[in-house]
Amino acid sequence: MEDSPLLLDLYELTMAQAYLRYRKNSLATFDLFVRQLPKGRSYLVSAGLKDILGYIKELSFSSSDLAYLKGKKIFSTEFLKYLANFKFGGDIWAVPEGRIVFANEPLIRVTAPIIEAQIVESFFLNTINLQTMIASKASRVVNAAKDREVFDFSLRRTHGAQAGLKVARSSYIAGFNGTATVLAGKLYHMPVVGTMAHSFIMSFKHELDAFLAYALTFPSRTVLLVDTYNTRQGILNAITGGLYLKKKGYKLQGIRLDSGDIVSLSKLARRLLDNTGLGFVKIFASGNLDEFKIKRLLRQGARVDSFGVGTNMGTSIDAPSLDVIYKIVEVTDEEGNFLPTMKLSKAKITYPGRKQVFRIEDKNGRFIKDILGLEKEKISGLRLLKKVVDKGRIVYKSPTLDKVRLALKSELCRFPQGLLDIDSDYMYQVLVSPALKRLQKSLARQLRERQ
Amino acid sequence: MEDSPLLLDLYELTMAQAYLRYRKNSLATFDLFVRQLPKGRSYLVSAGLKDILGYIKELSFSSSDLAYLKGKKIFSTEFLKYLANFKFGGDIWAVPEGRIVFANEPLIRVTAPIIEAQIVESFFLNTINLQTMIASKASRVVNAAKDREVFDFSLRRTHGAQAGLKVARSSYIAGFNGTATVLAGKLYHMPVVGTMAHSFIMSFKHELDAFLAYALTFPSRTVLLVDTYNTRQGILNAITGGLYLKKKGYKLQGIRLDSGDIVSLSKLARRLLDNTGLGFVKIFASGNLDEFKIKRLLRQGARVDSFGVGTNMGTSIDAPSLDVIYKIVEVTDEEGNFLPTMKLSKAKITYPGRKQVFRIEDKNGRFIKDILGLEKEKISGLRLLKKVVDKGRIVYKSPTLDKVRLALKSELCRFPQGLLDIDSDYMYQVLVSPALKRLQKSLARQLRERQ
Repeated sequence: MEDSPLLLDLYELTMAQAYLRYRKNSLATFDLFVRQLPKGRSYLVSAGLKDILGYIKELSFSSSDLAYLKGKKIFSTEFLKYLANFKFGGDIWAVPEGRIVFANEPLIRVTAPIIEAQIVESFFLNTINLQTMIASKASRVVNAAKDREVFDFSLRRTHGAQAGLKVARSSYIAGFNGTATVLAGKLYHMPVVGTMAHSFIMSFKHELDAFLAYALTFPSRTVLLVDTYNTRQGILNAITGGLYLKKKGYKLQGIRLDSGDIVSLSKLARRLLDNTGLGFVKIFASGNLDEFKIKRLLRQGARVDSFGVGTNMGTSIDAPSLDVIYKIVEVTDEEGNFLPTMKLSKAKITYPGRKQVFRIEDKNGRFIKDILGLEKEKISGLRLLKKVVDKGRIVYKSPTLDKVRLALKSELCRFPQGLLDIDSDYMYQVLVSPALKRLQKSLARQLRERQ
Repeated sequence: MEDSPLLLDLYELTMAQAYLRYRKNSLATFDLFVRQLPKGRSYLVSAGLKDILGYIKELSFSSSDLAYLKGKKIFSTEFLKYLANFKFGGDIWAVPEGRIVFANEPLIRVTAPIIEAQIVESFFLNTINLQTMIASKASRVVNAAKDREVFDFSLRRTHGAQAGLKVARSSYIAGFNGTATVLAGKLYHMPVVGTMAHSFIMSFKHELDAFLAYALTFPSRTVLLVDTYNTRQGILNAITGGLYLKKKGYKLQGIRLDSGDIVSLSKLARRLLDNTGLGFVKIFASGNLDEFKIKRLLRQGARVDSFGVGTNMGTSIDAPSLDVIYKIVEVTDEEGNFLPTMKLSKAKITYPGRKQVFRIEDKNGRFIKDILGLEKEKISGLRLLKKVVDKGRIVYKSPTLDKVRLALKSELCRFPQGLLDIDSDYMYQVLVSPALKRLQKSLARQLRERQ
């Protein structure tokens, strides 16, 4: 349902009919990019390309779609016939998933007959917005947790089920260690984890009964939730459970703190566990966590090994959308020549022409700046945009999720440390090439004169 | 895909296996409710029940689901056999869609064997969270716009495609007049609308060429976007287009302002349109709108007839999640007697027992307060929770979307005016019945003693 070709704004179709009528369906180029980073953020992590390619592959209007559109009585027979044969036949360049990107850098560049380029707009924006937003937020959580494990616990508060799945996948790309969402495990072959809920404990007469019932069912993978009634007593009950398992030759995996003062409770738990020979039992923390709280907990000496992070990451709560836009940057004239174009209205000026992002390394392989330039420019640096669709045919094979995840981890190490500090106001340098600046300036003059 | 039974947190399944092993699969009751309203909000609009019922109807584990779970090597053969025959066989009571609800009032109440009640938890929370959150936010936008039209333009920034569809539906329930999302129109039989994008104008040499091309394609449904280059000139070009259409016997539907000072630009546009005999042309505004901006625009005298509202509504930007929880309130003992239960941990105390929400009217039919009481109490008032599932069978027929929308509109009129003012700190009174208070108190004492 969610990759239906009707998953678009109505104006894409009405504009398309006008283009068709005026034989204006010539090639155009569009850039998809984030205009401004969310406040306090210093980079984005690209995600969503895999779904974009899946969508392009399947994109066609079913007879039921066409019947619905016909029933609206606003589309011409000529246009409905065009849609019946619709296929995406253009070129797409994109930044692979799991790369670091910055404001104004195209994540996707489409060159196609203008109708085709417009029909994919809503889906492309929607997909990149969600997945890049979440991967970017999750990457901050990973940075804050340093070498501790972090798990996605957000399903119950994500914006729908599909968002829950995409959050699991995008946060895993960003370095999360797994998710609680079982279906994400099945679909994306990623680790799934789980502990227990308060209701489990409350359905037994005594907390200890609940602990033992669970531990005996999963002797080698039990994490006991200790804050249902009284957390100190809960820790002691968990120790009783842990010692019982130990006697039977098993290891209690962990205890989970879900409320209260995590710093002091985790220190208490660590001490009590260590003093009873349960030093191997890990301490999990959850409950309204985000990168800021995790950083604070660790700075204050919390003895936490693993964090379960839910709502704040899964909704990107401080920036629940990206300023992601899809702008025309090039049109063709009657003779088929490409002419750069741009928007002029105040504060929304864009960079015209077919562009590439060049990432510049120093001699030690560390990244020092990006340059946004014209594609044809000869700038020596890594080129972020890769060709992924050639005349409608997919020419890029998405790597496995684990490969994407590892690639991001090693790419992050090549950036200055300031980028990874969640509280720093460090800004990585993104320059605009002189040629692109000149083009923008002369085009602005030309467009003002023409109108 | 999104209504798969695996759309849940892993712990629902591990707890289930422990329940099964310890023959603890007896009846329990869970309440789904919002603990606290988001800051600045005075009510919620219930939405999501239709999807809950659809999910309950289809809920079963496929052989592919079971094979995946088996492969995880954590589940017993006995448990997998149980899942293979799994069906939801409990009772569900729910507040119908499009009703006003407040903090602590159960939106859904489930009484079922505890495994069944837990397996539906993640889906129920996820579904109610998204749809109730959006309907509640959208209702504020409708209140702020007073009698002006408001349309959902949010698809490109919602959290995925499914969220886009649910936002269109939920905002329509709340009183929006339609959406730009075509698939929502097809699936939910709701109105779809559209104007044009900047790219359309930029793909023509002159703005006026673009306006005429569109207007001649859709002579009776054209809304011209006037801010691509210079908004004043854009308005004049739109007037040229409008006069041309008028001469041909058509009416230009509107112009759209998407940036700049909407107050002064809309006044200018209104004057110019009126002075040229185009008084019937409507003015649309869009661009980062929400209830606060709409209220301000109207207070400052903006001459806007219709608002397109996107990201801020479609992500519920100031409260991108609800504090929605699913809590066990009743368990059965060995003899099958229902015993109320509750969570004791600090600041998270809940109301135990099987409850009902009673809405009290005055003699003019105006609502004056709600009472959260025990189901068996005799309190005269409207009972918000209705039985929707009886022993697994759906016994409630969801009304059409238009009926839900109208019912909400007329219900809202019966509340004090303060509730509808987006800036007021008015709080509708929700009391807890003396019997429920007594139960909570005595149970707290009992539980503390027991642990």
